[in-house]
Amino acid sequence: MSGKGVTYARGFRAGAAKAGVKHGRAERLDVALVVSDRPCVAAAVFTTNQVIAAPCVVTRTHVERGPLRAIVVNSGNANACTGEQGERDATAMAEAAAKVVGCTPYQVAVASTGVIGFPLPVGRIASSLGQIALSEDGWDDASRAIMTTDTRPKVTEREVHLGAGSVRIGGMAKGAGMIHPNMATLLAFVTTDAKVDAADLRRIVGHAADTTFNAISIDGDTSTNDTLLVLANGASGVAPKGADLAAFADALRQVCAELARMIVADGEGATKVFEVRVHGAASAADARLAARTITNSNLVRTAIHGGDPNWGRILAAAGRSGARVDDRRASVRIGDLYVYRDGAPVTVEDAAVRKLFGAPTILIDVALGLGDGESVAWGCDLSAEYVRINAEYMT
Amino acid sequence: MSGKGVTYARGFRAGAAKAGVKHGRAERLDVALVVSDRPCVAAAVFTTNQVIAAPCVVTRTHVERGPLRAIVVNSGNANACTGEQGERDATAMAEAAAKVVGCTPYQVAVASTGVIGFPLPVGRIASSLGQIALSEDGWDDASRAIMTTDTRPKVTEREVHLGAGSVRIGGMAKGAGMIHPNMATLLAFVTTDAKVDAADLRRIVGHAADTTFNAISIDGDTSTNDTLLVLANGASGVAPKGADLAAFADALRQVCAELARMIVADGEGATKVFEVRVHGAASAADARLAARTITNSNLVRTAIHGGDPNWGRILAAAGRSGARVDDRRASVRIGDLYVYRDGAPVTVEDAAVRKLFGAPTILIDVALGLGDGESVAWGCDLSAEYVRINAEYMT
Repeated sequence: MSGKGVTYARGFRAGAAKAGVKHGRAERLDVALVVSDRPCVAAAVFTTNQVIAAPCVVTRTHVERGPLRAIVVNSGNANACTGEQGERDATAMAEAAAKVVGCTPYQVAVASTGVIGFPLPVGRIASSLGQIALSEDGWDDASRAIMTTDTRPKVTEREVHLGAGSVRIGGMAKGAGMIHPNMATLLAFVTTDAKVDAADLRRIVGHAADTTFNAISIDGDTSTNDTLLVLANGASGVAPKGADLAAFADALRQVCAELARMIVADGEGATKVFEVRVHGAASAADARLAARTITNSNLVRTAIHGGDPNWGRILAAAGRSGARVDDRRASVRIGDLYVYRDGAPVTVEDAAVRKLFGAPTILIDVALGLGDGESVAWGCDLSAEYVRINAEYMT
Repeated sequence: MSGKGVTYARGFRAGAAKAGVKHGRAERLDVALVVSDRPCVAAAVFTTNQVIAAPCVVTRTHVERGPLRAIVVNSGNANACTGEQGERDATAMAEAAAKVVGCTPYQVAVASTGVIGFPLPVGRIASSLGQIALSEDGWDDASRAIMTTDTRPKVTEREVHLGAGSVRIGGMAKGAGMIHPNMATLLAFVTTDAKVDAADLRRIVGHAADTTFNAISIDGDTSTNDTLLVLANGASGVAPKGADLAAFADALRQVCAELARMIVADGEGATKVFEVRVHGAASAADARLAARTITNSNLVRTAIHGGDPNWGRILAAAGRSGARVDDRRASVRIGDLYVYRDGAPVTVEDAAVRKLFGAPTILIDVALGLGDGESVAWGCDLSAEYVRINAEYMT
């Protein structure tokens, strides 16, 4: 993929700067700015953590008010658990970006990721914004500036050919790598030149988040700063309706799914990705609960890390998930191999399971035999490297 | 402590045998038998996992029927996810023990811990029971025979002097060390010579479990086999009533608390124990949810492992727990040091927090400022050793 990320859609430019948000890290891009040449319809999904960071609080207000012109993001400091000063700083960051862009502060979305509980160096961030040269090529710098312990930038894009013309969708994300020194945060920004109204976009984004970003897990800890923000500036002149709107929604969901999988694959210490499909659950909610509990289980994740044929941990995780589970009716497959079928273990060679668990991508299929509920979730393995990254931040 | 465990209370004898439950492990004690010289009132608490192991299903029936005479336990195989054959095997294990003891199978409780999804070698277990020499000194062997990856046996006992005379309480437990190859299991067996009726014992044991074994976490994975079983044989002749019954209940709770803390301290790869006190929660249920989510958080546990002053992770874990949390009202202390107070971070030296996090036992105190709910939970740190133990079972 050649890349283009957030500037693939027409009318968007981006850039980044080195603000030295963290002292001693002056060489690193740590502030990103994304600007649309015209006002954008916006929709956003924020962390469900009740301890919500100041930039999320501020951006929520701005998105509700709409329309937006720009996004400003910093890495290195989460501006979370920073009290009332935190909201003043997030607002000041929007104001500084607004001056550079030539819009009102309410037209700017802000996002932060990094250490929790330390004051945001908003002065340094504001000063850095003047240095940014916005361009259609700035997508790469922007995608690097939002990284923390991510090992690589995450961008994707696609063009959708609709009856009324083509629209473009592009995005960038940062992953749930642990941040020096504090918190796994998911930030994702998607831009499109489709002309959609706010209610449609909210609905489409809510659904997309639910089946992509909300279906991945690195370590079960929900950040205070998680943000998915989608801007639609209408620059294509194409306003999808009916079947076109459904096709647009599907493409946007695919962009989110790609970014979400990139995040899982780049999870801290991750060496493998696994997909958990639960079906036959008593309800969709039950399926979701079981699938996510399995992806979150330290025991399942260490077994997968070691390529260890401990399939019993999968069923045990489902059993404690809160979903209705009857092990007399359940079946479990690893890839195409049944290890437990219709309520009884299947005699399989350890080596066969081990080979499947040892692959870089593992499919786990759990049939509960209770109803029609189904759900898919994605997770990554738990390695000693994860512990090292998160235990030794200053040493 | 000199020890005496399950044979400290009068009228109890114990012993162990080497059944070779796991092939190639013939040198290891892996079957334990505890016998009372007279019938016992019994109360039990089992795993909340819906995938419940066959021995738990069988023992639940026997406890409901009561009274009991004996407990038979094997390590090396959990007899879980073993379908209908599993229940037949658990029943056969009770029958074999009953023959040795000279009672009915219904008077025997059975428990198993070890690999999930493989048939129990019940023949080898039954044969081994005949070798067991029951004695008052058998508590030590019994406490070793139930171990899996535990690094040391866990026993405790105490005498309670009541108005009507003294009663004794003793116990043994095995911890949530990961079992070769499968599942963390908590087994705890407590014996007493107090004369209590079944309804009182059920109430006392339910409360004790709730504030001790149910307040610890090693890795958030609930076993299919968790069992706490308490037998009261009345051999002291002392029937506590009123204040004496409360004193007995308190002593039994303390025995459970000691065993629970031994389990945490011996958690897989654990190098430190931490206690989380949550108070000022909107409700007791909220306090419990917040305290347990903090003890389960991989981020909190890795920070504590590394002695890393990432206190923000504590508040973030509370915020995602489902309990009502308002970071504008919360305070967080590590030991005596406030790091966050009345909704704002406190400026503290990293070195001071690092020193507190670096201690072998860490106290985390979270005040939510919302109500009267309070709860205490215990956890252990997450180390690379935990990952190694759980990822590499065959290598």
